[in-house]
Amino acid sequence: MKPYREMSKEELASEIEQLRAEYRKYQGMELNLNMSRGKPCKEQLDLSMGLMDALNSDADLMCEDGTDCRNYGVLTGIQEAKVLIGDMMENNPDDIIIYGNSSLNVMYDTIARAYTHGIMGNKPWCKLDKVKWLCPVPGYDRHFGITEYFGFEMIPVPTDENGPDMDMVEKLVSEDDAIKGIWCVPKYANPSGISYSDDVVRRFARLKPAAKDFRIFWDNAYGIHHLYDDRQDYLIEILAECKRAGNPDLVYKFASTSKITFPGSGIAAMATSPNNMADIVKTMTRQTIGHDKVNQLRHVRFFGDIHGMVEHMRKHADIIRPKFEMVEDILQENLGELGVGSWTVPKGGYFISFDALEGCAKDIVAYCKKAGVEMTGAGATWPYGKDPKDSNIRIAPTYPSLADLKIAATLFTLCTRLVSAQKIYEEM
Amino acid sequence: MKPYREMSKEELASEIEQLRAEYRKYQGMELNLNMSRGKPCKEQLDLSMGLMDALNSDADLMCEDGTDCRNYGVLTGIQEAKVLIGDMMENNPDDIIIYGNSSLNVMYDTIARAYTHGIMGNKPWCKLDKVKWLCPVPGYDRHFGITEYFGFEMIPVPTDENGPDMDMVEKLVSEDDAIKGIWCVPKYANPSGISYSDDVVRRFARLKPAAKDFRIFWDNAYGIHHLYDDRQDYLIEILAECKRAGNPDLVYKFASTSKITFPGSGIAAMATSPNNMADIVKTMTRQTIGHDKVNQLRHVRFFGDIHGMVEHMRKHADIIRPKFEMVEDILQENLGELGVGSWTVPKGGYFISFDALEGCAKDIVAYCKKAGVEMTGAGATWPYGKDPKDSNIRIAPTYPSLADLKIAATLFTLCTRLVSAQKIYEEM
Repeated sequence: MKPYREMSKEELASEIEQLRAEYRKYQGMELNLNMSRGKPCKEQLDLSMGLMDALNSDADLMCEDGTDCRNYGVLTGIQEAKVLIGDMMENNPDDIIIYGNSSLNVMYDTIARAYTHGIMGNKPWCKLDKVKWLCPVPGYDRHFGITEYFGFEMIPVPTDENGPDMDMVEKLVSEDDAIKGIWCVPKYANPSGISYSDDVVRRFARLKPAAKDFRIFWDNAYGIHHLYDDRQDYLIEILAECKRAGNPDLVYKFASTSKITFPGSGIAAMATSPNNMADIVKTMTRQTIGHDKVNQLRHVRFFGDIHGMVEHMRKHADIIRPKFEMVEDILQENLGELGVGSWTVPKGGYFISFDALEGCAKDIVAYCKKAGVEMTGAGATWPYGKDPKDSNIRIAPTYPSLADLKIAATLFTLCTRLVSAQKIYEEM
Repeated sequence: MKPYREMSKEELASEIEQLRAEYRKYQGMELNLNMSRGKPCKEQLDLSMGLMDALNSDADLMCEDGTDCRNYGVLTGIQEAKVLIGDMMENNPDDIIIYGNSSLNVMYDTIARAYTHGIMGNKPWCKLDKVKWLCPVPGYDRHFGITEYFGFEMIPVPTDENGPDMDMVEKLVSEDDAIKGIWCVPKYANPSGISYSDDVVRRFARLKPAAKDFRIFWDNAYGIHHLYDDRQDYLIEILAECKRAGNPDLVYKFASTSKITFPGSGIAAMATSPNNMADIVKTMTRQTIGHDKVNQLRHVRFFGDIHGMVEHMRKHADIIRPKFEMVEDILQENLGELGVGSWTVPKGGYFISFDALEGCAKDIVAYCKKAGVEMTGAGATWPYGKDPKDSNIRIAPTYPSLADLKIAATLFTLCTRLVSAQKIYEEM
């Protein structure tokens, strides 16, 4: 089939009629499918059921250092969890704080702390007239949700296959001391699936922010979430790079086991410099007596060490790789020649990013929804939920079964074709 | 023996000499004992090892409503956990939010939210020139630590065996709209062990605060933590009473299973009005995708229902009751006739509150420490750690073994005698 833009008005009209007929068939199927969130599927969750046996009533719940995990105490996490998560994050265990079950919560908390008490002696952000925040786009809606909630002015920064536009980032942060942070998902990014290039990471580590309390929020949510054994992205470790660049305090790095064991019942962590850590611990001592050490120990006992975790991630990949590949195949087959969209082909993570023709994303998502397939809301990948081109759509292929996914992805391409054809036709 | 104040100078000098000799003996024992924190002992923790078997790899981790506890979602907690904790807190499950592992963290978070975003549309506290807070004394050091950290002016409110001085509370909150809250541990209070009388609770529910965003922080940490089956305090349920009084939104009520199962690995909860809950959930949706549902389900499966929990608490009581009674006996035997201190005899909770002669508490704690017995710091039970009379000491008898506790409590009475005798002698 030829690209829609090269079709005559009659050809396009006939195509639209055919697509509408097909769409009505889907509407008759009363589907109820979901490609909206980056949720593991049942088979992935089943992989971690052994976690439930890692500690039983005969288990010794003592740490190697003699700490009874069942009792109060140990503010920043048990040592063996720091070692495991340190290996996972490629950081020194001493640079790690183990938190509760949600890295999103750690990020919220980190911003809330800066807002109420300031970072390392700087003025609390609540006392400033204006706080601005850099938001590489497309990005993660829940990140933007936090900074929006605190009333920060969010500035979109374009990204390409190498990461954010670093010329723009460097210029903005060096000139404007109201800019206090930037959201980054540096590896297998949400939603594009790209990983930051060596050059981008090195330039991040060498930023010269006008604000002393500017911090990079480095959400390495998909650090070991590869889809392939033989084709993997490699990301320069940011803490080490910042240290090397003489900027040791520039970054807060986040990770969790949410998409390794059970989302919501895993452990989250931050890696950061000793100065930042001392600053954070000052608040933590007021916030809590400690996080869930039993769950920390449970994870350590379940995985043994990083090798166990890597092996475990291979099993995840085996389950979700076919889903990514099937969606990519369907996109290619149904849209490949039509010139109505482009998409990423990630080597890891949880998402495919789709760029429709300008002004089509909302309609595509709406058409999907009316036929029973829920997509992430169009615009969600932009600050304030406003994609100026109304073009980007996040596809989350992991949760549905392969059979459901086939239907959902096919419907998605159908809706994309229909909305695009209608749009082009109207413009003729 | 007669009261120290009735002794002659010679009698007292001889007593001091004898006490010093005895104290030196303790110093020679190289003790390392701890009566400082309200920590369960090993035997208490062992009671909950069955929790580790409540969910194993064969378990169905689905909720009754079909929610897979292993995946993302369910912001305010699974229904069966709300029912269990609702029974524990004497509240409707619909009025309950289940959080993570720490009720202290929920309290911090509640204040942080009011500080950053305000309560129910009122101005965020960070935008106010002054926030004041009522602190019944003696009270819980970690409560005071939070309000101190946010820079609030803390106003001590005296308490007696019925609770805080309600004349003072009523007058202050009705006159001063800078007063935004009050810390309460209404049952088996930390540290006094007293429970608020019916009259006090009713007056709390009928407060007419000048500030619309005044809230009672009702930390019912020891709601079912009785020491006796046949002698128990009864506390009027505050949410129901507030509703009855036409003040439904006046209170945030907190509880947790920290001293029921494992401290740090339990579940915490808040009970509050629908208005307050809607206000809180607005923030929660930004903070997290959800708390640890697997651990919620684990607790539900372990206890079955409230009867299982009550039965479980009896076992705790059987372990710690002898400790309380032994300390009370030692206090009575060694100090009962000397007029150098008074103490509470609680029917539940985790503490005994001791009032030494004015100006003696710090010295007593220091003497204990020098001989190897750690007490809660003198002054800790007061805002800013400053007890104006330097008199109150919190005794935490649960953690040490009975044998250790006997030594520690005896040493404590010895130090109290020595410091008091020296003080009286100097004043002669």
